[in-house]
Amino acid sequence: MNVTVRGKTRHFRTVSFDAQRNAVLLIEQRLLPHKFAMVATRDFRETAGAIRDMVVRGAGAIGATAAYGLAQGVRAFRGRDLKKFSTHHEKVYRTLKAARPTAVDPVNAMDQVRDVMRQGETIEEQQALALAAAEEFANQDVQHCQQIGQHGAKLIRNSSTVLTHCNAGWLAFVDVGSATAPMYAAQAEGKQFHVYCDETRPRSQGATLTAWELAQQKISHQIIADNAAGHLMQRGKIDLIIVGSDRTLGRTGEVANKIGTYTKAVLAARHGIPFYVAIPLSTIDWNLKSGFDIPIEERHESEVLGAWGSHHASRITQPSRRSQTKADHASRAYVRVANPGSGALNPGFDVTPAELITGIITPSGIYKPRELWSQRSKLGGPG
Amino acid sequence: MNVTVRGKTRHFRTVSFDAQRNAVLLIEQRLLPHKFAMVATRDFRETAGAIRDMVVRGAGAIGATAAYGLAQGVRAFRGRDLKKFSTHHEKVYRTLKAARPTAVDPVNAMDQVRDVMRQGETIEEQQALALAAAEEFANQDVQHCQQIGQHGAKLIRNSSTVLTHCNAGWLAFVDVGSATAPMYAAQAEGKQFHVYCDETRPRSQGATLTAWELAQQKISHQIIADNAAGHLMQRGKIDLIIVGSDRTLGRTGEVANKIGTYTKAVLAARHGIPFYVAIPLSTIDWNLKSGFDIPIEERHESEVLGAWGSHHASRITQPSRRSQTKADHASRAYVRVANPGSGALNPGFDVTPAELITGIITPSGIYKPRELWSQRSKLGGPG
Repeated sequence: MNVTVRGKTRHFRTVSFDAQRNAVLLIEQRLLPHKFAMVATRDFRETAGAIRDMVVRGAGAIGATAAYGLAQGVRAFRGRDLKKFSTHHEKVYRTLKAARPTAVDPVNAMDQVRDVMRQGETIEEQQALALAAAEEFANQDVQHCQQIGQHGAKLIRNSSTVLTHCNAGWLAFVDVGSATAPMYAAQAEGKQFHVYCDETRPRSQGATLTAWELAQQKISHQIIADNAAGHLMQRGKIDLIIVGSDRTLGRTGEVANKIGTYTKAVLAARHGIPFYVAIPLSTIDWNLKSGFDIPIEERHESEVLGAWGSHHASRITQPSRRSQTKADHASRAYVRVANPGSGALNPGFDVTPAELITGIITPSGIYKPRELWSQRSKLGGPG
Repeated sequence: MNVTVRGKTRHFRTVSFDAQRNAVLLIEQRLLPHKFAMVATRDFRETAGAIRDMVVRGAGAIGATAAYGLAQGVRAFRGRDLKKFSTHHEKVYRTLKAARPTAVDPVNAMDQVRDVMRQGETIEEQQALALAAAEEFANQDVQHCQQIGQHGAKLIRNSSTVLTHCNAGWLAFVDVGSATAPMYAAQAEGKQFHVYCDETRPRSQGATLTAWELAQQKISHQIIADNAAGHLMQRGKIDLIIVGSDRTLGRTGEVANKIGTYTKAVLAARHGIPFYVAIPLSTIDWNLKSGFDIPIEERHESEVLGAWGSHHASRITQPSRRSQTKADHASRAYVRVANPGSGALNPGFDVTPAELITGIITPSGIYKPRELWSQRSKLGGPG
C-alpha cells in the first residue's frame, strides 16, 4: 500500500524481491510506527534472521518471506553439480524453517516453491523456477487479500464507523491485509467512513501498526483504549466490527485471534452489531474439533507490566536502505508501568465461538461460521 | 493500611493530620508505584495545591484532605478578632473548594466541619472543633470502608479468584478502600484467594495503584491486560468481580465508573459470574433519573497515545518527608506508544445498567441495585 515519506507517496509491499541484487526487501516492522525503513537481506541467512527477529511478522508476510528466501538461497548457488545444489537447497530450506519453528506458513510457502522448482532440469532452470514460484506465491497472497476486500467492502456504508482489533493489515501480509482489506476497497469505491482502532494491549499493534497503516492510507481513524469499545457500542457509535484470525476452525467456525477479540464479540452480540472475521484460506484448520483444543500461548509478563514507545514523538519518518537486519532501536524505549513488586498473567490469544460471529469474509465469499465445513470443497478443505 | 519500607512494616493512612506541626500528611500518589513518599503540607494553600495537582485523588481521600485543610487553615489564624477570623475562614474554604471545582466531596466534607466548628464561641474553641470535626470525618470514612469490608468479605471464599478494575482501594479513601475492603477483610479472616487486577488503560490505575496496594498487603495477585478478562472468564478462572463506583444512581441502580467497567459487567453476565459494586453512601446520586444523563468526561488523548512508567524498575521505594507538594518526577517517563500521526478518543467513564449488577455493597449491607430507592431511608436518601 502507500507510504508517504518526505511528502512523496510511493507504493510498497511488506515483502518483495530485488532480482538484480538477489535480495529480499522487507519493511522493518520493529521500528514502526516511529520510523519507516526498508531492509534488504543479502543472503538467505539474513532472511531467516529477519523472520526470527520479527523484522517481519504476520502469517502471509512470513510465508512470502520464506518463499523468497528459498529462491534467494538457491539462486546464490554457484557451480554445476546437481547433488551439491540439492544439499545446498536442503540447508536453505532447513535454515528458513528453523527461523520460526512453530509457524506453518513458511513451510507451506516453501513447499509450494519447491514443487515448482523441481520441474526444472538444470540448475539454472530450477533457480529461475524458484523465483517465479516465490513471486507467484506473493502475488496470490495479494490477490486473496484483494478478494477479501471486494466481498467485505459491501459491508461498509457511507458514514459507517468500523471497529478493528490488533493488526490484520497489509503489514501482516504481502499487501492489502485481511481485516483492513474491506476498508481499503471501500475507500477505493469512494466511501467515507471512520475506523476505531483498539489499542490492543499488551503489544499495542492497533495503536502502532494499524493506526500507522490507516494514517498512511489517509483513512479517518482514532485509537481507543481497549476499555472504551463497550461504551462506544452502548452509545451507538460503532456500526460494524472486522477483525482478523490466527486460526479458524473449519469444523466449528470458532476463531482464535489476538487476546481481546472474544470480548469485542461478546459486546457486539449484546448490542446487535455485526461482527465479521476476515481470513485468508490458509488460516483454516480443518482438523481440530473444538476451540478448547487450541493451545493458548502464555507470553512474557513484561509485555503487560510495561510499554514500548518513543521519547521522540515528532521524529520524522524517513526511509533508509540497510544491509543488516539488526535494526536501530535507539528511538524505542521500554518503561515499566506496573508496580515493581507485581507479576502478570499474559494469555496471547482467545477463542470466539461461532454463535458470536456474523460472518467469515474469505477470498471466495462471506460465509456463516458454521457453513465453512459444508462449503469446504470451495475453501480448500478435505474431501 | 500497611506499607513496608526497607523491611519495616508500618501502618499509614492515605490522609492524616499532624496537629503539632499543623500539617496535612499525604501519600504522594503521583510517585506510586515506583516510589513511596509522604508529603506534609505546611499551610492550607499547599493543601489545596496537593488536591489540585493530584498528589491525592479519590473521592474519600480528597474529602478528608479538604476537611483537614480547612482545620489547618483556621488553626493558623492568629489574633482575637472574630470578624477577621471569619473572613480568613471564608478564604480558606474558597481556596480549597477551587482546587477541584467539579468534585462534590471536598465541599460536603468542609460543610460538615464548618457546621461543627460554628458551635464554638471563641476562636480557640472553633479552631479545636474544626480539627475534631475533620478527624471525625476521616474516621467515619474509614469506618464506612470497614463496614463495606465486613459485608463484602462473605462473598470471598477460600481459593476464590477475584477480578477488580481500576483503583477503588485505600489510596482513594482515608484507608481500607471500597472495592478492596472485602479483600482486606477476607484476608483478616484468614481466607486465601487470588486477585486479578485489570491494568485499566489508559491511566493504568490497576497495574500501578491497586497492584501496589495488594503487594504491600501481601495479597496474592496478578495484573492482566484489560483484553484478557473475557478469556479468563471463558476458561472458568474468575469467580467474583468487585469494582468501585464514581456515581451510583439511587433511582435506577446504574453505576458510572472507570471506562471498561461496563465491558466487565457484560462479560460477567454472559458467564454467570457475580458482579458487585462497592460504594460509600456519598457516591449515591438521588436526583438523576437515567444513566444517559451522566456526563461522560472526555479526557486528553495523550493518555491513550502513550504510557507513563519508570526506566528504573528495580528502584527501592523509600520514604521521605517533604515540605513541598512539588514532587520529584525524575523517575517517571512518558513514552509515545501510538503512531505519531494518529489521534485518540478517550472517554473516561462508562455506565453499567442495573440488570448487569448482582449487588451493591454499602456500609449498611448488600442491596440489589434496584433496591436502593426503596431502601433510601437507610442509605441517606431523600424522604
